[in-house]
Amino acid sequence: MPELRRGPTSNRWVIVAPERAKRPTDFERKPDPSAIDEKPANCPFCAGNEAMTPPEIYRIHDGAGWRVRVVPNKFPALQVYQELGREAVLGVFDRMRGVGAHEIVIETPEHVRDLADMSEEQVKLVIDTYIARLQDLMKNPWFRYILLFKNHGKEAGASLSHPHSQIIATPIVPQEVRNSLMTARTYYEKKERCLYCDVMLEEIRSGERVVEEVDGHVVWAPYDSRFPFELVVYPKQHSHDFTSLSTEQRYGLARTLIRTLGRLRALLGDVPYNFVLKTTPNPVPRPGRPGYWSTLPYDYHWRIAILPRLTQVAGFEWGTGFYINPMPPESAAKHLRDVKLETPS
Amino acid sequence: MPELRRGPTSNRWVIVAPERAKRPTDFERKPDPSAIDEKPANCPFCAGNEAMTPPEIYRIHDGAGWRVRVVPNKFPALQVYQELGREAVLGVFDRMRGVGAHEIVIETPEHVRDLADMSEEQVKLVIDTYIARLQDLMKNPWFRYILLFKNHGKEAGASLSHPHSQIIATPIVPQEVRNSLMTARTYYEKKERCLYCDVMLEEIRSGERVVEEVDGHVVWAPYDSRFPFELVVYPKQHSHDFTSLSTEQRYGLARTLIRTLGRLRALLGDVPYNFVLKTTPNPVPRPGRPGYWSTLPYDYHWRIAILPRLTQVAGFEWGTGFYINPMPPESAAKHLRDVKLETPS
Repeated sequence: MPELRRGPTSNRWVIVAPERAKRPTDFERKPDPSAIDEKPANCPFCAGNEAMTPPEIYRIHDGAGWRVRVVPNKFPALQVYQELGREAVLGVFDRMRGVGAHEIVIETPEHVRDLADMSEEQVKLVIDTYIARLQDLMKNPWFRYILLFKNHGKEAGASLSHPHSQIIATPIVPQEVRNSLMTARTYYEKKERCLYCDVMLEEIRSGERVVEEVDGHVVWAPYDSRFPFELVVYPKQHSHDFTSLSTEQRYGLARTLIRTLGRLRALLGDVPYNFVLKTTPNPVPRPGRPGYWSTLPYDYHWRIAILPRLTQVAGFEWGTGFYINPMPPESAAKHLRDVKLETPS
Repeated sequence: MPELRRGPTSNRWVIVAPERAKRPTDFERKPDPSAIDEKPANCPFCAGNEAMTPPEIYRIHDGAGWRVRVVPNKFPALQVYQELGREAVLGVFDRMRGVGAHEIVIETPEHVRDLADMSEEQVKLVIDTYIARLQDLMKNPWFRYILLFKNHGKEAGASLSHPHSQIIATPIVPQEVRNSLMTARTYYEKKERCLYCDVMLEEIRSGERVVEEVDGHVVWAPYDSRFPFELVVYPKQHSHDFTSLSTEQRYGLARTLIRTLGRLRALLGDVPYNFVLKTTPNPVPRPGRPGYWSTLPYDYHWRIAILPRLTQVAGFEWGTGFYINPMPPESAAKHLRDVKLETPS
C-alpha cells in the first residue's frame, strides 16, 4: 500500500510506493534503448489491445472504437481509500495513507510519435478528456490537488512510447504548488492584479523571450528557465481554472500545443520532455474541516509548462534547488521563433 | 558572462551560463555510453596530463607529484567578479552577475573507479582538500554559500569518469538551504535542541532505517527518502560546520564513506550517484551590509546526502516538487545492512 511521508527537516511530502518496484535487482539499469520503441502488436495502448490495460474509466467513442481512452495506471503511485490515516511516526515524522488516484490518458488509438503528429481535432479531444477527468476527480473531497502531466521519451520518464498523459490526484497540495498559490495571493492582495497576467504582459511588451502569440495563447521561454528550451503556454484571458475552457479556447490550445511541440521537434529532433499543467487546487473542503484553499484562488492563472530534458540534473541542483541553465531563454526563444512550420498560423 | 536570475512566480534563482553550451546542436543527444570511459591517456585528470587542465589552484604534494589537485572548472557556472550588479529587469525580474567560483577537486592521480576504491589515507586527503578550499573560499565576503558535491556516473551528470568532486561558491544562499536553516533555527528557538540531532537520535533508537553506526558517524536511509537507496551520513557529534572536523573525525568520515559507497556498489553495481555536503553558509557579512546569516547557525548540523540515480525524475516531480519513491527506506537500509563488506569495521 503506498503511503505519504513527510520529515521535519525537508518539510516535503514523498510518496513511498513499494508496489512499483520491490527488489534491488529491479533497479539494475537495462542498457536497452530500444525497449521504449515496442512494436504496436505488443503496445497495450494501441487499438485492438484494449484487453491489455486495466478496465477503462472513460472513453470518447468513435463508432465501436474510440478516439481517447482513460485507464488506471497498472502500478499506481496512489490508490483510492476511504480514510487518510494521518499519524505521527517516532514523534518527528508525518505519515498518511497513499490516498489518491493515478490514471493514464491514452491520447490516440494510433501508435504515432507525439501530440505534434496528431490532428487539431484529436488534440482537442485529448483536452476534452483532461477536463472531463479533472472535473470528475475534483468531486472527491479527499483529493486536494490533481496533477496532469505528460512524460515523452525515455529520458523524461516515459516507459511506453505510445502517446499518453497521466493524472495523479493527491490528498495534499504539493509544496511547490502551495508556494506559487501563496505568491499569487500575496501579490493580488497588494496590487489587485494577477501576478501571472503582469508577467505575461511584460513578456509580450519586451518580446525577446516570446516564441509566439497565437490563438488566444502566448508561448514564451521564462526569464528564469531552469532548462534549455523550457517553455510556458499561458492563456491570454485570465482564468485560475483549466477546466473552465470554452470550446473555442480548447481548439486554440490544441493548435498552440501542436505548433509549439512541432517547433521543438523541428529544432531539436524527437526531444524528451515533460509537460505539466498548473491549475487551481481542488477547493472542495474535506468533510467537517475547511480545506486549505477553501476560497477559490481566483488570483491564480492556469498554464502549461513544457520542460525539454536535454541536460542532466546533477548534484548541484539536488543539493540546492538551484539550477544551471546553459541556454539563455532569449536565445532559445529566437531559435524557436525562427523555425519554419509547415502549417502557418 | 554567467548571470543569476530570479522571477517573481517561482522565487527561485537560476544560473544562466551560456558559456557552457551555445547552439541548439550542442544539445543533441550523443548516444555514446562509452564516452565517459575515456582512456587514461586522454584523461585530463590523470597524473602526467596536468597540462590539460587550467592552472592549478591547490595541490597536496607527493614528492614531485601530487595526491589531490584542485583546478578551476573549464566551463565555470560562475566566475569571480568584483561587483554583483543586482538589478531589476522589466520591473518584475531580478538579475545579478554570475559572481562566484567553480572548482574541480581531482581526488586521486590514478584513474580508479570511485572513492570506494581508494585507501582510507587517500580519502582523508580528499577531505583535507575539501576543508582547505572551503576555508579559503569562505574568506571571500561575496560568497554566501559554498556547495561541495560529487557527480559519479553519466546518469548523475559526470562528464569525466576520473574520480572528482566540484565546489561552487554562490553569491546567494540557495532557497532550499535557506529553508532548512530556517527550519533548524525555528526548532531550536522552541526546543533548545538541534532538530537534526533529534532526528538522528530517533533514527538510532528505532534502528529500522539505520545502515551503520560507525567511527563517529551514523548512516541511514531518510524517512522521507525521495530516491531508492538515498542515504545520509551524519556526524554523531553536533556541529554546524564541516570545516571544523578534527583529524580523527576526518579519518572516521573517510572510513564511513568508503564503507557506505562500498555497500552501494556491492548491492547495486557501479551505480550513478550524487553526493552533496550540507553545511553552514558563509557567515561573513558583505562590506557595509550585514549578511543574511550574520550570526553563525550553530543550530544547524552538517551532513552528507548520497543520492543514487536509479529512477527517472519525471513530470510529476518537476511539476510539484513531490517525489515518488518505489523503495521504502526501511527495505533499502535492510538490504544495505546485509551487505558483507571485505573490510569489517
